[in-house]
Amino acid sequence: MQILIILAHPDPSSLNHAIAAAVRQRLEEEGHSIWFHDLYAEQFDPLLPAGEIPRDVRLDPVIFRHCRELSDADGIVIIHPNWWGQPPAILTGWIDRVIRPGLAYRFVGDDSGEGVPEGLLRIQAALVINTSNTREDRENLVFGDPLERIWRDCVFGLCGVTNVTREILRIVVTSTPELRRRWIAEMGDLAARIFPGIP
Amino acid sequence: MQILIILAHPDPSSLNHAIAAAVRQRLEEEGHSIWFHDLYAEQFDPLLPAGEIPRDVRLDPVIFRHCRELSDADGIVIIHPNWWGQPPAILTGWIDRVIRPGLAYRFVGDDSGEGVPEGLLRIQAALVINTSNTREDRENLVFGDPLERIWRDCVFGLCGVTNVTREILRIVVTSTPELRRRWIAEMGDLAARIFPGIP
Repeated sequence: MQILIILAHPDPSSLNHAIAAAVRQRLEEEGHSIWFHDLYAEQFDPLLPAGEIPRDVRLDPVIFRHCRELSDADGIVIIHPNWWGQPPAILTGWIDRVIRPGLAYRFVGDDSGEGVPEGLLRIQAALVINTSNTREDRENLVFGDPLERIWRDCVFGLCGVTNVTREILRIVVTSTPELRRRWIAEMGDLAARIFPGIP
Repeated sequence: MQILIILAHPDPSSLNHAIAAAVRQRLEEEGHSIWFHDLYAEQFDPLLPAGEIPRDVRLDPVIFRHCRELSDADGIVIIHPNWWGQPPAILTGWIDRVIRPGLAYRFVGDDSGEGVPEGLLRIQAALVINTSNTREDRENLVFGDPLERIWRDCVFGLCGVTNVTREILRIVVTSTPELRRRWIAEMGDLAARIFPGIP
């Protein structure tokens, strides 16, 4: 399978980076082809300009490449911390710019933008890995965990991807090195289970 | 009152811009002092760097000014479109960089980051105005309207601001010029009701 990995964390020594590296390695060992984007390292520009809003415009080459990879991928892994119930802005902007009408979804019947969208992605499974410093009960009761609806319904659901697994690792800030090592190994195993290779 | 207005839309001819201008004018007519930020026009950099994560660091002067204004404001108005259940990335990044521990909130007891945060903002009322192209029933049922929890609970609730009004204008893409004019006037009136001036 062709799998797209998107990583959004500013610190190369972060748990997020270690998890992304482990996931990439395990999926390569399974025989998959990987497109890997460390958005901070690539200095991805997250600001959708006004001229990019219409459907049929000539895209910036970097954005066009991201759009093509998203369209051609069989699977996707997204790795980021939970900041304010949202992804870091660099990933919010990746969503804003890369998930485009006519490529990732289209409006059925009414194409004015008011119609009901239909997903166009061929992605068979999505894995979202989040790190958090908020306890599970507090996240659900006080904050309502907006990332759950954002990824499952607003983004992947709209693009036709219904097989979505989301894993939340908490509490990172007080975690021991042992726990982090276990998390890293577990996330590699989880990715290999979701995207099984050819035996 | 000192009121902070934050606008996040890439198109200067947008409904969002017209609403922001109307709100600003009405609040000035009410006798308030306004700090106004059109984040796109100011080319606000939304990318939180790793070096800005620790609590006590020397801040970029632009970020420091935003932090000071947020701390000193008596009221705030946020205006942005609903993109994927989130604010545009430029505003997500404003949240990431400007709402800082020690200034907008602090951790009670345990200051390692795992503790329960206590809000520090003096803001008495917040108004969030969103534009949308999704019908209300579909937004609530299919997408769960993540912006409601993001603004009310994840951001303002955490910073101690409990008086939050959120107004959603829909459907923008098919709205008539008459309806847009009415919306613009109504949003000015709403802001003046939420932040009454000295008679």
